[in-house]
Amino acid sequence: MISTHDSALQSWLDEELEGVVSRFEAELSSELSCVNWLSSYVQRYRGKMLRPSLLLLAGYATSEGGDRVSEAHRVASTVVEMIHMATLVHDDILDEADLRRRGATINHLRGNEAAVMLGDYLISHAYHLCSSLEGTWISRAVGRVTNTVCEGELLQLENRENWSLDRRTYLEIVRRKTGGLCGLCCWLGGALWRGTPAVPGRDDSGVMGGLWRFGESLGVAFQVADDVLDLVGEEREVGKTLGVDLRKGKLTLPVIVYLSMLEEAERGSLIETFSALGEMPENEFEDVLRSLRGQIVASGALDAARDEARGLLAVGVEEGLGGLSEGPAVRALAGLSEQVVDRWV
Amino acid sequence: MISTHDSALQSWLDEELEGVVSRFEAELSSELSCVNWLSSYVQRYRGKMLRPSLLLLAGYATSEGGDRVSEAHRVASTVVEMIHMATLVHDDILDEADLRRRGATINHLRGNEAAVMLGDYLISHAYHLCSSLEGTWISRAVGRVTNTVCEGELLQLENRENWSLDRRTYLEIVRRKTGGLCGLCCWLGGALWRGTPAVPGRDDSGVMGGLWRFGESLGVAFQVADDVLDLVGEEREVGKTLGVDLRKGKLTLPVIVYLSMLEEAERGSLIETFSALGEMPENEFEDVLRSLRGQIVASGALDAARDEARGLLAVGVEEGLGGLSEGPAVRALAGLSEQVVDRWV
Repeated sequence: MISTHDSALQSWLDEELEGVVSRFEAELSSELSCVNWLSSYVQRYRGKMLRPSLLLLAGYATSEGGDRVSEAHRVASTVVEMIHMATLVHDDILDEADLRRRGATINHLRGNEAAVMLGDYLISHAYHLCSSLEGTWISRAVGRVTNTVCEGELLQLENRENWSLDRRTYLEIVRRKTGGLCGLCCWLGGALWRGTPAVPGRDDSGVMGGLWRFGESLGVAFQVADDVLDLVGEEREVGKTLGVDLRKGKLTLPVIVYLSMLEEAERGSLIETFSALGEMPENEFEDVLRSLRGQIVASGALDAARDEARGLLAVGVEEGLGGLSEGPAVRALAGLSEQVVDRWV
Repeated sequence: MISTHDSALQSWLDEELEGVVSRFEAELSSELSCVNWLSSYVQRYRGKMLRPSLLLLAGYATSEGGDRVSEAHRVASTVVEMIHMATLVHDDILDEADLRRRGATINHLRGNEAAVMLGDYLISHAYHLCSSLEGTWISRAVGRVTNTVCEGELLQLENRENWSLDRRTYLEIVRRKTGGLCGLCCWLGGALWRGTPAVPGRDDSGVMGGLWRFGESLGVAFQVADDVLDLVGEEREVGKTLGVDLRKGKLTLPVIVYLSMLEEAERGSLIETFSALGEMPENEFEDVLRSLRGQIVASGALDAARDEARGLLAVGVEEGLGGLSEGPAVRALAGLSEQVVDRWV
């Protein structure tokens, strides 16, 4: 779970997140035992519940007295968690990953077919649950964001083995793939109090647009941190298959930065190595990965990637939280953005 | 396209279906060219547009003068077509199929990853478009049906290589996988005129429940026909990879009926052959398939499977169309059910 460093707020949040878990289970429950087995297995994928936490905290931060959050906030938190879980299940197929949260992935355990369908089952239930909320604008906003998430994934696929991928395109992929859903969470936290149709988006100049931009920048920084961990983390600590990005031909920010620091000949030779990674035997791959880590850290490219994400995040905090009245939830949101950065230290 | 044998009705339907195609394209259009390429490729998967035709004809059949269908019918027709296309794209991954509608499948052409994400993109846009309709009950009904579709697929996966699969479980899979969406189409055709929240379902005793049951039985008969074609069709005529069901360990109605006709020893020996199909070289597999076809046709099992589907369909026509006033759209719906049966003649 997310840590808020505020014991009263923390027990409120923990209790709300337990409620999210219960709603999650109730929504997925089926008459068919084979479906229930998969639904309960996927609960192992649950992490720190960043997305529902963002939604609930943004709801609290924008509540005007009375309840901290509404029933709609609770349902919507379950919806975003379910969408996130669906993306994890389908991502593991894309990555051919065997390990997630220290356990076997669904595709590893039951084959790609079951993983495709389980992901679809989660997506379907997410929309089904979402449409139990009053106001079609909520489903509309969620649909708009999931459209963007898929576009981000497709753009990333298109750029596999594109060894000249630039920062701008990388950040565009990440903004769509991860930023949008976190932006939506923070935006919904505020928007669900209003109960009126509204267009979600980062371009809104008011408090709501600020919340969106805060969530989006947090999501982007979170993804950059994830990409950094894939490169320099320890498999045992991170709990999932590492080095997957490079092996699948995905360039991430620290690698992009490092490549841009090299002379043309060196760059060419490294790209040649990258192109061969897909077919390389496991032990040889480990050696290449170890050596590359050393070079990237020594060159300062890792620090540069961190600084870029820190910069984005600082702007998001300023723009998104600046307009809100001080209080425990706003402090917790600001704290969360610190934690995102801390992940990679 | 579906043939209505009524030239005035046909030109109306054709024009409406062209409108569905335009809305389909407009909804999927993206800023990203790689996404647009995939979206336009998937249009090759488009078949006779059974599901939008059902929805539009059911709308026409229940209209009380004035317009034949409303704008909501047109949007909802696009939604159901998009959901159907998404299931085709993901089904091809499940089946490891290389060919659909005489062209390469997305998974064959661009890999499983692109097929997973393209299917997700279609699903996401289907819900996004659906939530542009007034009334959350529409998205709710669609979500309920897509939940069931996924359950059907998961139940089918669970029963792969279950060589003692019975009729009842087979029909339960088909009802969920294919029946539900067709039931929804017919139900929506009527429900969208009412504009009031309602619970979709086959158990409703009124006209709406009847429409649901008609669509459901038509969907089931259609799937049985599809399964029959997978077994006894000609690849060139059907335009997709055949024999896939058996090779992937999926028993279908004619095979289930045939197995039930055999003595225990013969059944055991045939099941032994089935178990070996997955690993069998292509030419050997063709021989087994050819011989099996002959046996199934000669035994009368094929006719028995057809009769079972015909019986289900007759009940659906009686219950679903009996309560509607006579007219061109009702006649066309009845004619459609004939065409479903004709497919396998």
